[in-house]
Amino acid sequence: MPTKSFFHGADWNPEQWPEQVWAEDLALMREARVTAATVGVFSWSRLEPTPGAYDFGWLDRVLDGLHEHGIDAVLATPTASPPPWFTQAHPNALTMRRDGVRLVHGSRDTYCVNAPAYRAVSLRIASALAERYARHPAVRLWHVHNEYGTWCFCDHCARAFRGWLRERHGTLDVLNDAWTTDFWSQRYADWAQVLPPRATQYLGNPAQELDYRRFLSDRMLAAYTEQRDAIKQVAPQAQVTTNFVLGGWVPVDHARWSHEVDLVAIDHYPSSLDGAPAQSAFAADAARGWSAAAGHGGRWLLMEHAPAHVTEDGVQRRKPPGMLARIALAHIARGSQGAMYFQWRASAGGAEQWHTGLIAHPGSTTRVFAEARALGNHLAAEGRAPSYRSAYKKVPFLTDQPAGPGLAGAGSGAARADVVGSGEVAVWFDELCGWAVGASHLPMPVDYRGIVEGWHRTLWRRGHHVDVVPPAAALAGYRVLVVPAAYLLSDESARRLDEYVHEGGHLVVTYLSGIVDEHLRVRCGGYPGALRELLGVRVEEFDPLPAGVAVGLDTGDTATGWTEHLTVPGAAVLARYPDGRPAVTQRAHGAGVAYYVSCALDDAARVRLLDEVCAAAGAAPVLPDLPDGVEAVRTPDGIWLFNHTDERHEIAGRPVGGGAVVRLPPS
Amino acid sequence: MPTKSFFHGADWNPEQWPEQVWAEDLALMREARVTAATVGVFSWSRLEPTPGAYDFGWLDRVLDGLHEHGIDAVLATPTASPPPWFTQAHPNALTMRRDGVRLVHGSRDTYCVNAPAYRAVSLRIASALAERYARHPAVRLWHVHNEYGTWCFCDHCARAFRGWLRERHGTLDVLNDAWTTDFWSQRYADWAQVLPPRATQYLGNPAQELDYRRFLSDRMLAAYTEQRDAIKQVAPQAQVTTNFVLGGWVPVDHARWSHEVDLVAIDHYPSSLDGAPAQSAFAADAARGWSAAAGHGGRWLLMEHAPAHVTEDGVQRRKPPGMLARIALAHIARGSQGAMYFQWRASAGGAEQWHTGLIAHPGSTTRVFAEARALGNHLAAEGRAPSYRSAYKKVPFLTDQPAGPGLAGAGSGAARADVVGSGEVAVWFDELCGWAVGASHLPMPVDYRGIVEGWHRTLWRRGHHVDVVPPAAALAGYRVLVVPAAYLLSDESARRLDEYVHEGGHLVVTYLSGIVDEHLRVRCGGYPGALRELLGVRVEEFDPLPAGVAVGLDTGDTATGWTEHLTVPGAAVLARYPDGRPAVTQRAHGAGVAYYVSCALDDAARVRLLDEVCAAAGAAPVLPDLPDGVEAVRTPDGIWLFNHTDERHEIAGRPVGGGAVVRLPPS
Amino acid sequence: MPTKSFFHGADWNPEQWPEQVWAEDLALMREARVTAATVGVFSWSRLEPTPGAYDFGWLDRVLDGLHEHGIDAVLATPTASPPPWFTQAHPNALTMRRDGVRLVHGSRDTYCVNAPAYRAVSLRIASALAERYARHPAVRLWHVHNEYGTWCFCDHCARAFRGWLRERHGTLDVLNDAWTTDFWSQRYADWAQVLPPRATQYLGNPAQELDYRRFLSDRMLAAYTEQRDAIKQVAPQAQVTTNFVLGGWVPVDHARWSHEVDLVAIDHYPSSLDGAPAQSAFAADAARGWSAAAGHGGRWLLMEHAPAHVTEDGVQRRKPPGMLARIALAHIARGSQGAMYFQWRASAGGAEQWHTGLIAHPGSTTRVFAEARALGNHLAAEGRAPSYRSAYKKVPFLTDQPAGPGLAGAGSGAARADVVGSGEVAVWFDELCGWAVGASHLPMPVDYRGIVEGWHRTLWRRGHHVDVVPPAAALAGYRVLVVPAAYLLSDESARRLDEYVHEGGHLVVTYLSGIVDEHLRVRCGGYPGALRELLGVRVEEFDPLPAGVAVGLDTGDTATGWTEHLTVPGAAVLARYPDGRPAVTQRAHGAGVAYYVSCALDDAARVRLLDEVCAAAGAAPVLPDLPDGVEAVRTPDGIWLFNHTDERHEIAGRPVGGGAVVRLPPS
Repeated sequence: MPTKSFFHGADWNPEQWPEQVWAEDLALMREARVTAATVGVFSWSRLEPTPGAYDFGWLDRVLDGLHEHGIDAVLATPTASPPPWFTQAHPNALTMRRDGVRLVHGSRDTYCVNAPAYRAVSLRIASALAERYARHPAVRLWHVHNEYGTWCFCDHCARAFRGWLRERHGTLDVLNDAWTTDFWSQRYADWAQVLPPRATQYLGNPAQELDYRRFLSDRMLAAYTEQRDAIKQVAPQAQVTTNFVLGGWVPVDHARWSHEVDLVAIDHYPSSLDGAPAQSAFAADAARGWSAAAGHGGRWLLMEHAPAHVTEDGVQRRKPPGMLARIALAHIARGSQGAMYFQWRASAGGAEQWHTGLIAHPGSTTRVFAEARALGNHLAAEGRAPSYRSAYKKVPFLTDQPAGPGLAGAGSGAARADVVGSGEVAVWFDELCGWAVGASHLPMPVDYRGIVEGWHRTLWRRGHHVDVVPPAAALAGYRVLVVPAAYLLSDESARRLDEYVHEGGHLVVTYLSGIVDEHLRVRCGGYPGALRELLGVRVEEFDPLPAGVAVGLDTGDTATGWTEHLTVPGAAVLARYPDGRPAVTQRAHGAGVAYYVSCALDDAARVRLLDEVCAAAGAAPVLPDLPDGVEAVRTPDGIWLFNHTDERHEIAGRPVGGGAVVRLPPS
Repeated sequence: MPTKSFFHGADWNPEQWPEQVWAEDLALMREARVTAATVGVFSWSRLEPTPGAYDFGWLDRVLDGLHEHGIDAVLATPTASPPPWFTQAHPNALTMRRDGVRLVHGSRDTYCVNAPAYRAVSLRIASALAERYARHPAVRLWHVHNEYGTWCFCDHCARAFRGWLRERHGTLDVLNDAWTTDFWSQRYADWAQVLPPRATQYLGNPAQELDYRRFLSDRMLAAYTEQRDAIKQVAPQAQVTTNFVLGGWVPVDHARWSHEVDLVAIDHYPSSLDGAPAQSAFAADAARGWSAAAGHGGRWLLMEHAPAHVTEDGVQRRKPPGMLARIALAHIARGSQGAMYFQWRASAGGAEQWHTGLIAHPGSTTRVFAEARALGNHLAAEGRAPSYRSAYKKVPFLTDQPAGPGLAGAGSGAARADVVGSGEVAVWFDELCGWAVGASHLPMPVDYRGIVEGWHRTLWRRGHHVDVVPPAAALAGYRVLVVPAAYLLSDESARRLDEYVHEGGHLVVTYLSGIVDEHLRVRCGGYPGALRELLGVRVEEFDPLPAGVAVGLDTGDTATGWTEHLTVPGAAVLARYPDGRPAVTQRAHGAGVAYYVSCALDDAARVRLLDEVCAAAGAAPVLPDLPDGVEAVRTPDGIWLFNHTDERHEIAGRPVGGGAVVRLPPS
Repeated sequence: MPTKSFFHGADWNPEQWPEQVWAEDLALMREARVTAATVGVFSWSRLEPTPGAYDFGWLDRVLDGLHEHGIDAVLATPTASPPPWFTQAHPNALTMRRDGVRLVHGSRDTYCVNAPAYRAVSLRIASALAERYARHPAVRLWHVHNEYGTWCFCDHCARAFRGWLRERHGTLDVLNDAWTTDFWSQRYADWAQVLPPRATQYLGNPAQELDYRRFLSDRMLAAYTEQRDAIKQVAPQAQVTTNFVLGGWVPVDHARWSHEVDLVAIDHYPSSLDGAPAQSAFAADAARGWSAAAGHGGRWLLMEHAPAHVTEDGVQRRKPPGMLARIALAHIARGSQGAMYFQWRASAGGAEQWHTGLIAHPGSTTRVFAEARALGNHLAAEGRAPSYRSAYKKVPFLTDQPAGPGLAGAGSGAARADVVGSGEVAVWFDELCGWAVGASHLPMPVDYRGIVEGWHRTLWRRGHHVDVVPPAAALAGYRVLVVPAAYLLSDESARRLDEYVHEGGHLVVTYLSGIVDEHLRVRCGGYPGALRELLGVRVEEFDPLPAGVAVGLDTGDTATGWTEHLTVPGAAVLARYPDGRPAVTQRAHGAGVAYYVSCALDDAARVRLLDEVCAAAGAAPVLPDLPDGVEAVRTPDGIWLFNHTDERHEIAGRPVGGGAVVRLPPS
């Protein structure tokens, strides 16, 4: 039922406001065609003011209100922020930092996920909520916790870590080998000697650090599934998820977690205003990739994004007019089952009182609400929220499409196919590589995600519809696969990449790929150990460049940051360093081709290389020759165009105004 | 008696030197016309070498020596630095950092002001000093402690904080409301759950942080008044004060404290050499403002400043020749009852051995002492230290005034009126706004004091005599009042500002004013909530600009850093943003006018605006059209001119040499 | 026996590899003409897997293998990294940070050198190794511990510190005086009140900090001598040392320690690629200076350096072709008894897996091994490893010397004199001055070692053979002695400098010399207190300049950073500041001359001054007018030339190719 398949709305925190505001909120939600509201995320101290004593009355009224207004509830369990009584009762169940400092409440996320006391009270409140609301007609999706990702190094963690390691490694000998404990005399003789990677004198053990991230990910996942299962025990049909937050510091393996949620949901906060369109595309493509690989058909949900700003170097840059809808629709075009914001009404007090809301402090008169309302109307007109029986109202800023085919001609929601992936061009993205790079003490600082996003951005700029795929994804069928800086690569992944090429794929591998095994041990004998044969190259030396130094290749391209010294026992050379050494290579293998890029290329060089590779592979962009800043997405409804620039462009014979979103009819 | 009303001198730490140096010091003090010396500030471990056992002999000799030389003693209680025996006896009464780290002695200021043990020994030594010296003829002023401002987060603090909160908020419900604890599930169900804002996982609660500053201020004030009262019990006529240190990190509400001292005393250490004249003027005007609002008639004292340097980005810039006297006299012109330095003789060892002294390490032969001596002679000749019967000796660098009226014609000290305030132009300065801005997580980093000083500096540069006024100051009579970034504004303050304009005042309010109530809750409905009606504007959106971005207004002026989107339901527009939206507005209200400046203006723009406002309000500068770097102060003795530049200027028809101080006769 | 006098090799960690790799390693060592391998440095958890239970079998095989291949073993005690069982058994014997945080294992160097438990287990393992291997024929040198330098602030340290202070100062009165505890009320009344300089509120006591460094140095030295003596008890003929690591943070007084080792051994890791040649020369000259002053005849050993990289601002810059041998030979030319690397085979895992090795991850095919092999062959041909009976093979990159005298004509190792010092030109280097500068809160940040290296580098660039001398070195005979920023100077040192000049020496003293006594108390009466009379100057004021500000002298030279105001009661002025004040002075004293440089001069200005001084003193460079980047060293075999540039130069009538090393025959 399409009504039920689309989420347009926001986090709603009515407990921060007098009840008369609730009525205004519900009316305004209707006005903005909101279909769903997330409630309860940080309500624990309201729901359970003292241990075991519940106050559900207010939440009853909230859910009833939503239901009466035809709005779905995304009901959260509040376990991301235990109330002050938890600190009081269980001081040793709070977060301990790496240096042994015990944190206290006063913010959020202050707890140890391995503390039995924390797990017990979490499960209790989740169960109580399930008991009470599992059959509430407003509840459409359960949202366990919020943005899992809290580190802790306490004794509970130490104990649990040992158990996890026993399970993973079996014996201490295996652990010692995996962690290379012969380096710096770290060989363990007793499981009790193993500790979390707490503050130590100098450089830590990378394998220990990586395993600790894996451990935290697994333990948080257990905390999640524990709540999920409690909910499903009461309501087997319940849909349950949790919102993923992306970031190098987050010890959560989202690809793995995606198997345990009913709908992959992400929060997305870009780090720069100008970079927001490309960053949004990457996050959306990654979420779709996780969903697809976990068997969810590529469907996912943008659970949180900021209504009106992008925080850039500590400054809240305002989204210019039109950007709210353009970014929301770009996510939807890439498979999101809606667009949800944090938050509905900006808080008057508290730590995030200056986070923007759909209803800003001044009220519903502001531009941001007008834009949200227009977007809601547009979505409703599109059939994405058909339970609302209001007339379709054309929203000018969403299109400058002339009469004829276009928005007006779009099919109804019910008729639409679900999600379109690329199927042609993919970028490999493995969060564990980011962890691995972060744990290791590399020859120079390396930003894994930045490298991956760079390659994705180039393809995005060139008009390609790109899938971002985790290592477990099916690779067959892709014409082009880019594997940037896949530092940690399992034997199995290496085998699958070989097979991919052999079967006809075009593979582009960059420097720092296939270097270490799953325990961060270098694959010796010549880099990239896991892919040396496939690529036909042998790297003998890394030669990182200091900031400000560039090296010109004989192709006219430029490398900065990273270079290598390699020999090419089995590959053709496409580009060379100034001294004639190979820089970029190509090797035919089976029915396919494997390229190796031994240096950090700038965007222009990536364009030239990828254009060539895609042409050779027969991977066509959605639209060719797009101007910079114009995004084209293939959807079941045809191609959507997003003009992220201020200028009017002519695309596919049509004028597309600055800031406009235009849909081309399915051809 | 004028002798007794003027302080020219320094901190003197004879305990660091053999007694033969004391005699030399006293002789040199006479030579430099020193009238007062602060003693005992950090002498606790000498005065009470073991708990309860006193050694007053050396201090007897110090005070007797001062008295014999006709020099007053400012006698300090030494409680800012407990001796090592305190650490040994009361390890849990030492400072605990936010992260739980307990500090130890080895520096200064290591104690918890809420620890009963600390309070007990502090009161004991203060009482012992009072008993012994209350009637010593040299003791003219008591100086309790030194630069109150130490943070602590220990359990003593937690207990005391709860008591303070109960008194402030009454019930937990009120507290929960004031602190917006519904955000992030922080609702308190038991007073015992309330803690100081210790290290937590992520962003802290702004209202908790602000109340903690208020609490620390109150508790330190109680520690001060406890000592003050003990002294006054022994010597009811004793004059008692403590030295205020300005800085964003100092949790002391100086406006409030000013009511509890007999003489407002400040320490002043500018942060840049070129900025020192303007910063000194601001600090002086603020001290005068606190004194006036607390009923002390505007009298105050510069208790500490550095003899020969300004520390700028970690480098001690030397004051060029003449600057010592020029800065001292500028403070005096603005109401200081003297000029005191830290310190008399530079320490040979210890943490501040490289802090400059009037007697530098090389001895009394140095330039700094020569300048101090010349200043002393000048002050004596001025009648500010008439107890010294020495001939007046003209000090050339203090003036290049030609014969005739001028220094030579100045009236005697006895004849002078006391302190002149501006009475015409004022700048609102509320340290709590700085705390509020620091506790909040704003849309961009904001430097409250920098903004206030910027507006003050512009008026200073334009030759205005400015009062810097705390919120409780009387506003009636000011022609112009500038309120920069008064983020936190009480209802009462808003009412008084309205009344001020209504009665004929010209009010200039900037962005980020009137935004939150006293608990940091945003005043919703359109910014600036507290002043919206008065100003006739309604701000819908903040639009902070990243570093390096500027916006041109239609007046030719430039805004950087902060801009806003506003509507002007009831105001005229004086300047507009490039897109035509209002930037600066003006509204007539009653007999006055209220201006609103929605963006950060550079100095040139502030000059244009304030010149216009002052002209309209009839607020004339002390002297018009002063060159940059020339300061004019109106005093009871006429106008004093300070040429802070190296160039000679023609002012009011007279040549004023580079670096010179010139007095114009009262007209 | 020359064989036994030369160390070409590396740290070898066979325990990280399967035994089949050992055989390959030994064969490759032969191939590279390796004469020595350091083993056991971090092997504790392998050697003593559980407390008191040893596993020596593998080390037996390692040492036997080395012996069979004719390679010497440098046998380390493994005490720099206690195994995890130590943490488990003695949690309170681990490092405590200044802020009280207790560190745990997981890296290296995590222990308290003052913890009885640590000392006991360290002595036990060292003794066990001595018992077992003292008579092993491969063992040629004992290498106790690794890079002593770990700070700790725990209670064990507190107790030991008090004992050390009692011994040093005798009474508390003396301590209070030495530490100037009257500043900020720190006077101690009981030894139990004395603590390590733990985290405190604000600036710490410089004298306490300096004494704490001295204390740590002495206690680590005691830990070293304890192990050394245990070894010598078993094997009185054993040669024992430990490897010094240079760095401002290392609390080890290497000049003093040099008396306790049988061979001064240093590790050297330059901080910039371009700066590596000059930094290496400085480190080598310093090591030779320590050795000579300690009676070891100037012999020393480069125990560790990196095979293939220099880490510069976090980026591993690759050594270009030829640099490996050039830097190794440059050290040897300056007296090193060999060239040892860290490490032989790059680790596959662990914290330093990206540290380069002679055998890189790709194996023995790489450039770095080829260069190491070529160097080994060259050294063997030179007679430095005559036990290897292989034909000499000319290594082209080591020379472009035309036929005739040169490498081919070099004498045999047996015939060579041992070490040549300069004997003519010296630079004063006292690590305690670095500590003193670091502990004090100076008028601006000062980099002591940077200043010393700057003066050394100028002399090096001008072709001088320079000795770097500790304060205890014999000074007689030097024509020129430069004393840069010798902030802390004892009376005895001052007396010896005076005598040095009086006897005919040319002494160049810079600003910030002779300022404080051994307790960091300023020598009052005019800077530089200890040298005022000798230099004939009297500094009255320091005038540090902010970054970016330069002052031109009347000589055309430029000063930045530091300037001073001085009078010259007894000296001639060589250069003046813009205002005519003296900047550089000269005073004849006895048969010599004393120069004073009151400001920080740039390299060009140092060249002009030192050229003049050296000319006047009759100190000739090894070769005159060397191009920048060409280094000339006088050795027993004649002059060695190192061309660190890429260009070919004509030197002494011969062409010297870019990167080449050329030996001129003894003339």
